[in-house]
Amino acid sequence: MTSTIDPKAIGKPVRARRHVRTLTGYLPEVDATGKEHWPRGEEEVWQAGLRGVDQDVPSITKSIVNHVQTSLARQAYNLDDLGAYQAAALSVRDNLLVNWNETQLNYTRKNPKRAYYLSLEFLMGRTLDNALLNLGLKEQYRDGIKKLGFSVEDILDKERDAALGNGGLGRLAACYLDSGSSTELPLWGYGLRYKYGIFQQLISPEGNQLEAPDPWLDNQNPWELPRLDVTYEVRFYGHAERLSDSRGVWQGGQEVLAVAYDVMIPGYGTKNTNNLRLWESKPKRGFDLNSFNAGNYEAAVASSNSADAITSVLYPNDHTSFGKELRLKQQYFWTAASLADIIRRFKQQGKPLKELPDFVAIQLNDTHPTLAIPELMRILLDEEDLNWEQAWSIVTNVFFYTNHTVLPEALEKWPVPLIEHVLPRHLQIIYDINLFFLQAVERKFPGDRDRLARMSLIEEGQPKQVRMAHLAAIGSRKVNGVAELHSDLVRTTILKDFVEFEGSSKYSNVTNGITPRRWLDQCNPELSDLITKTLKLDKVVWLKDLTKLDGLLEFTEDAAFRKEWAAIKQRNKERLANYVQTTLGLTVRTDAMFDVQIKRLHEYKRQTLNILGVIHRYLTLKGQSPEERKKANPRVVFFAGKAAPAYYIAKLTIRLIVNVARVINADPDTKDYLQLYFLPDYSVSLAEVLIPASDISQHISTAGTEASGTSNMKFCLNGGLLLGTVDGANIEIAEEVGESNVFFFGHLTPAVEDLRYQHLYHPVPLEEKCPTLHRVLEQVSAGLFDDADIYEPLLNTIRQNDYYLLTDDFDSYIAALAMVDEAYADKEEWTKKSIRTTAKMGKFSSDRAILDYAESFWNIEPIPVTAKK
Amino acid sequence: MTSTIDPKAIGKPVRARRHVRTLTGYLPEVDATGKEHWPRGEEEVWQAGLRGVDQDVPSITKSIVNHVQTSLARQAYNLDDLGAYQAAALSVRDNLLVNWNETQLNYTRKNPKRAYYLSLEFLMGRTLDNALLNLGLKEQYRDGIKKLGFSVEDILDKERDAALGNGGLGRLAACYLDSGSSTELPLWGYGLRYKYGIFQQLISPEGNQLEAPDPWLDNQNPWELPRLDVTYEVRFYGHAERLSDSRGVWQGGQEVLAVAYDVMIPGYGTKNTNNLRLWESKPKRGFDLNSFNAGNYEAAVASSNSADAITSVLYPNDHTSFGKELRLKQQYFWTAASLADIIRRFKQQGKPLKELPDFVAIQLNDTHPTLAIPELMRILLDEEDLNWEQAWSIVTNVFFYTNHTVLPEALEKWPVPLIEHVLPRHLQIIYDINLFFLQAVERKFPGDRDRLARMSLIEEGQPKQVRMAHLAAIGSRKVNGVAELHSDLVRTTILKDFVEFEGSSKYSNVTNGITPRRWLDQCNPELSDLITKTLKLDKVVWLKDLTKLDGLLEFTEDAAFRKEWAAIKQRNKERLANYVQTTLGLTVRTDAMFDVQIKRLHEYKRQTLNILGVIHRYLTLKGQSPEERKKANPRVVFFAGKAAPAYYIAKLTIRLIVNVARVINADPDTKDYLQLYFLPDYSVSLAEVLIPASDISQHISTAGTEASGTSNMKFCLNGGLLLGTVDGANIEIAEEVGESNVFFFGHLTPAVEDLRYQHLYHPVPLEEKCPTLHRVLEQVSAGLFDDADIYEPLLNTIRQNDYYLLTDDFDSYIAALAMVDEAYADKEEWTKKSIRTTAKMGKFSSDRAILDYAESFWNIEPIPVTAKK
Ligand SMILES: Cc1ncc(COP(=O)(O)O)c(C=O)c1O
Ligand SMILES: Cc1ncc(COP(=O)(O)O)c(C=O)c1O
Repeated sequence: MTSTIDPKAIGKPVRARRHVRTLTGYLPEVDATGKEHWPRGEEEVWQAGLRGVDQDVPSITKSIVNHVQTSLARQAYNLDDLGAYQAAALSVRDNLLVNWNETQLNYTRKNPKRAYYLSLEFLMGRTLDNALLNLGLKEQYRDGIKKLGFSVEDILDKERDAALGNGGLGRLAACYLDSGSSTELPLWGYGLRYKYGIFQQLISPEGNQLEAPDPWLDNQNPWELPRLDVTYEVRFYGHAERLSDSRGVWQGGQEVLAVAYDVMIPGYGTKNTNNLRLWESKPKRGFDLNSFNAGNYEAAVASSNSADAITSVLYPNDHTSFGKELRLKQQYFWTAASLADIIRRFKQQGKPLKELPDFVAIQLNDTHPTLAIPELMRILLDEEDLNWEQAWSIVTNVFFYTNHTVLPEALEKWPVPLIEHVLPRHLQIIYDINLFFLQAVERKFPGDRDRLARMSLIEEGQPKQVRMAHLAAIGSRKVNGVAELHSDLVRTTILKDFVEFEGSSKYSNVTNGITPRRWLDQCNPELSDLITKTLKLDKVVWLKDLTKLDGLLEFTEDAAFRKEWAAIKQRNKERLANYVQTTLGLTVRTDAMFDVQIKRLHEYKRQTLNILGVIHRYLTLKGQSPEERKKANPRVVFFAGKAAPAYYIAKLTIRLIVNVARVINADPDTKDYLQLYFLPDYSVSLAEVLIPASDISQHISTAGTEASGTSNMKFCLNGGLLLGTVDGANIEIAEEVGESNVFFFGHLTPAVEDLRYQHLYHPVPLEEKCPTLHRVLEQVSAGLFDDADIYEPLLNTIRQNDYYLLTDDFDSYIAALAMVDEAYADKEEWTKKSIRTTAKMGKFSSDRAILDYAESFWNIEPIPVTAKK
Repeated sequence: MTSTIDPKAIGKPVRARRHVRTLTGYLPEVDATGKEHWPRGEEEVWQAGLRGVDQDVPSITKSIVNHVQTSLARQAYNLDDLGAYQAAALSVRDNLLVNWNETQLNYTRKNPKRAYYLSLEFLMGRTLDNALLNLGLKEQYRDGIKKLGFSVEDILDKERDAALGNGGLGRLAACYLDSGSSTELPLWGYGLRYKYGIFQQLISPEGNQLEAPDPWLDNQNPWELPRLDVTYEVRFYGHAERLSDSRGVWQGGQEVLAVAYDVMIPGYGTKNTNNLRLWESKPKRGFDLNSFNAGNYEAAVASSNSADAITSVLYPNDHTSFGKELRLKQQYFWTAASLADIIRRFKQQGKPLKELPDFVAIQLNDTHPTLAIPELMRILLDEEDLNWEQAWSIVTNVFFYTNHTVLPEALEKWPVPLIEHVLPRHLQIIYDINLFFLQAVERKFPGDRDRLARMSLIEEGQPKQVRMAHLAAIGSRKVNGVAELHSDLVRTTILKDFVEFEGSSKYSNVTNGITPRRWLDQCNPELSDLITKTLKLDKVVWLKDLTKLDGLLEFTEDAAFRKEWAAIKQRNKERLANYVQTTLGLTVRTDAMFDVQIKRLHEYKRQTLNILGVIHRYLTLKGQSPEERKKANPRVVFFAGKAAPAYYIAKLTIRLIVNVARVINADPDTKDYLQLYFLPDYSVSLAEVLIPASDISQHISTAGTEASGTSNMKFCLNGGLLLGTVDGANIEIAEEVGESNVFFFGHLTPAVEDLRYQHLYHPVPLEEKCPTLHRVLEQVSAGLFDDADIYEPLLNTIRQNDYYLLTDDFDSYIAALAMVDEAYADKEEWTKKSIRTTAKMGKFSSDRAILDYAESFWNIEPIPVTAKK
């Protein structure tokens, strides 16, 4: 044969790289004296072209204009706000890059232990404003952009949210990255680069939620660095064989390429700029002989497209998993690429693998990345030739697992046949882990078969299922919940057996936190300025040590200060009203109390309780004389939140809210005392407008169901008061600010089990048990808000069974609302409560949380970027 | 209702643009005195940031380093050749942009008539080298790149071909764009931005062609400018209704977004830099209520992906159309977006639509864009409210149609039911056009029903089909073929009736051309230098007036010149041998004649004739004594070319070539006299290496089947001699260089019909008709090249029927090959022929062709960019 080429050789580089890499794990070559020598070409020519961080306005405008002209191929004549945003963002990106490069090089030189945060969701929101804040260039950019004929506010407003998450879990990951950089920890995130983020929510005229895809990358994304040189091959399907000694081989199937996109995460008040690496799936270049039938071009193209599909869409489900093959492929694709990258970086140091736990800690954000456990076993056994004990000891010292829920329906399980099909080798390893584990349990609890069945990684049934939380727990060094109460529940309910077997020291708590940069300084700049002025501290000091807020307490009694405080709240309410006016064309009165509930729609979060409370208030007002009504506390109630597309009851709740709003807001009798708005398409950016405007916010989950909540912290940090149940982080907030400054109601967690038992075995008719609620439901059923029949399935969840205890909590909820009204009547006292609330939020900085992880879990230390070498 | 938003309003900009656009049709605002005023911000701040074209090495290296650091986020430490290519390309792009902006602004100011070249294929090849040449910065970049530690050759080699075409038709479009810019004509191209270009060809060890997708955009493409602000909506499916007066409405169905990507086309020796606009399909942002069932999120995502799919893949078929729905969608998507863009630009001038033909000429490259005719009718009738006569008169003065083939199987037809489904309104318009047209024909030829049936746009049958060539012909102002013979054939065969009806002046010819920048100066720099030196003309002069090559004739008798000439050919042969060595690991002898046939695999191109000729030579050599053999002219035969994936016979031909090569190259008796190579994955870049190395090239299509051919011109321009049939542009080449300098053989076009008739009705057994060929086929059948049976289907196309007349032409082909051998024996005379060939190629510059179109068809004039304002 003269003229063939080996298909496998296609696309392979002809020559090996001539130079060692630096940025992500390689170092410059050194000469005999230890001096680094310039790697390529003439050093002075290179140096002449390199840039530092822009400092003054002229260099900033020059850089923006250059991006307008070249990157965007536009001119002053045809530049709109979106274009100006893009050019400004690109110039900011260039500045971030300088710090990012320095940070990565510094880590490589110092070679510390690193931590990796594996999260299937990162709900980053917008970047530009945060980048400017963290670079310390906000003023300079404001000036420069003005000189170019634009306003910085208009430009910031053009950025599309990076909405790669469903809700709290994803936003938590984003806050932790911000804190990781700000506290100078060597912490990287790993996630997926979804082509479509969380769906865009639209509300039809009838009140139905419609979901539209969110092609957020359409306008190009200035914040990512495509790293086309960082790729890994990931296998699916195929055939696994066991070899001797727990080893195996896995071959055939589909091979897909993971390509890295890096997102720079600048720290506040430091040069440290960490990395969030997101993986995109791509077909293998050229010819993937495994993936398709060679010789069929259309099939080849289809196979290429099916590789693209893996990272196409973020699953829009919160607290539910659906056993979808593509979702399993996402999870494996992401964990396999991330582990390959982590191990490559570790190996560059030339250390033996048994030292991996001394250099690497991997946090599993919920069970989504749990396949990392069998995947690391596979690598160590099949590729690195370690034996089972060595491998298992490495694995269980590298991983850490955060549990985010104890709701039974939210615990991830995968059907055994599906895993067998997609990941045949991993199923073998899971079975082996299970066997060794159960043997150990049996040694400690001989003959306790129930216990063995409860603890097994495999749940019996048709089909059998793999319990991911069990796998995550036994494969990790430590396990934590996300608030004190929740961690207790983890230890005493879903993982009780494991605590008994492994001891309680492994099962710990880290209460969630939020970044005060975004959630105070950025979203509420006036309040931030007032705090800085009042505390007489540089902003950078208290934003990095949030307990300093404590210093506000002494100003509670300062009337002038209170006036400023209240005036800022008022302006934030007007900002929100203005937003509603421009986006929805609706006029909100701003002299009323703003009462806000914004979060995913879910029965356990009980938006239903809130809307039924609103109806109750409406009926009460309707029953009053005009004179009586005049005494009412005027309220504007805001809802926002998305429902999972397949979550019928949650969507019905939205529909009810929308239709109640239609009736109430149009009723001349009541509209001065009660307004109601459902703001569509809840997002981080919308939260940033809503949260600073809230007088009171509602966090009213059935006790024991909300693991922590983080929006509660955000409201309180912005001086909004909290109305809530004794659940999640509400409890710790109350501990901090004092019970007299929060409004609590409802049954406590220990009572829940028993109440549910009563519902089932000793039901009491609603009209007896809770006549007020009964009256409300009757009105809905009677068609007061149109659509008489349509709400029956929603109402029936309350009338029958009532799993989330609305009938038990309704009366105390109404009472709590009345207490809120009463408290709000005394505006001075209310403002004092508001100041006290903000003042005591120091604990809830995500800096505290991330340092807690760093110290008590990962054992990593801050590695500040030192002066430029 | 308080809280709903209109789904249709989503994604619409809140405010209108504040500033008028410039680049593609808008002008700066002027003040009362007529002075343009600065549109935005402070003029001096803007000016301080703007750049011109780099001129010196330091500014070039600075720009490259800046791109390494920022655009690529890399450093000197981790930069490989690919990275260096990307950085250099980005810096070149910045320079091109300056000229591109000036050119577009200049067109807008001058407002001349413009021409648009609509082509479904643009086979651009690589860009960097051409851009450097046309910018006049080749030397400066060579120096700068060297200072940075890289070599310009290595870097050029990293560019991936833009292979958005199948072959000649697409490469012609690319040459025409180069010539349009170089001759300073206001000419834009419109095409599609396929995600996958023409497939990558691999050859399996057995000799089978395998096709792999070509994801050419994977490494990002520095040569395109995404214009996310230039988008149009394109509709498919839905429902069409007729209104009064030939008007109609078309509603519903799927709406897809076309996004523009601009590719800059620099002219040589001028600042003029035209534009090639490629469309990408995207889902409509947000909510396309028409496209899917609202409320089903998975369906919504699937629908988004189906919008992406439209421009996913270039159809890999040459001269065949398959009636695929997606292909029809591609054609309509592209013509609709292009027309919308053209009309928007025209309307900016505020002129009435009846003046459209005074400002716009649109060339239809083959029938692929023929839907532009009913689409423009639809716009004028349904959207612009013109009547039928006005609309038809505009249409028939705007369009021009180039026919590329008279092969019956290559004439595009679309099933009526398919068009009705995808484009219901267009089918109505096509029926109307047909009716009015046939009525006119009937008036001229009353009662001639056969004629009406032949000329109808609709071919009867099951299903009925729309004849696109007929529609293109009657909807255009002029029609041309691509070489004299071919244009004659168009007039006398497929469009004979139309010539009789409309008169012959509408049916014209423009012989194809090639750009001498790429096909001489870039691919054969030594020869270019020798020519410059010899002609004593600045390179820019003769490269822009190729007839100057004529001046070489007088040096034919100059022995020193001939020596240099031959030495260059020899070095080009060595360059090719080196390429084969590095890419395939095979050693080619360079002291033999290089005999090349490179083009798509197709029965009409008769690669089979060539390979059977090779076998015949092999058998002859085998039959000779070693002494006799020593007298043979040593030959190395090269093949390259792709076969359409579904074209069984063409793929079998490749397999035969590969297996013959295996046997021949290993045969110790003959390998010093005959070598054979099939080079995989033919491409523009491979052509650039092969063409300058050829002593003789083969263009041996059955007479009357190859419309023109352009590779024949390329070989001859590089001093390669031509062995061919009396077909296409071969004839005109022979006219120019004189018959004594080319090698012609085979039957002539007028004989073909008759020979085919004889084959069918008076077949003569092969052993009688052509015993030499018979013997060759017998050997193949007998398994001399393995796979005894496998070639039977291929051999049977010759034994039975022999549609392409191999049996008729084989003997004269062998005789011609012998003449070539004989001529080559006299090296001095051969070199003279070579010089004479190059010298007489002036006619075949695509500059000549494009100026011909400009003058005789489009009526447009050069609009040079004048000094910077
Ligand atoms: C967009 C978004 N979704 C969800 C959440 C989490 O909200 P909660 O803690 O109320 O569940 C937040 C937190 O502010 C958020 O910004
Ligand atoms: C890649 C490629 N394909 C096809 C062609 C057209 O070849 P021909 O004119 O021989 O059909 C050319 C012309 O050189 C080419 O470069």
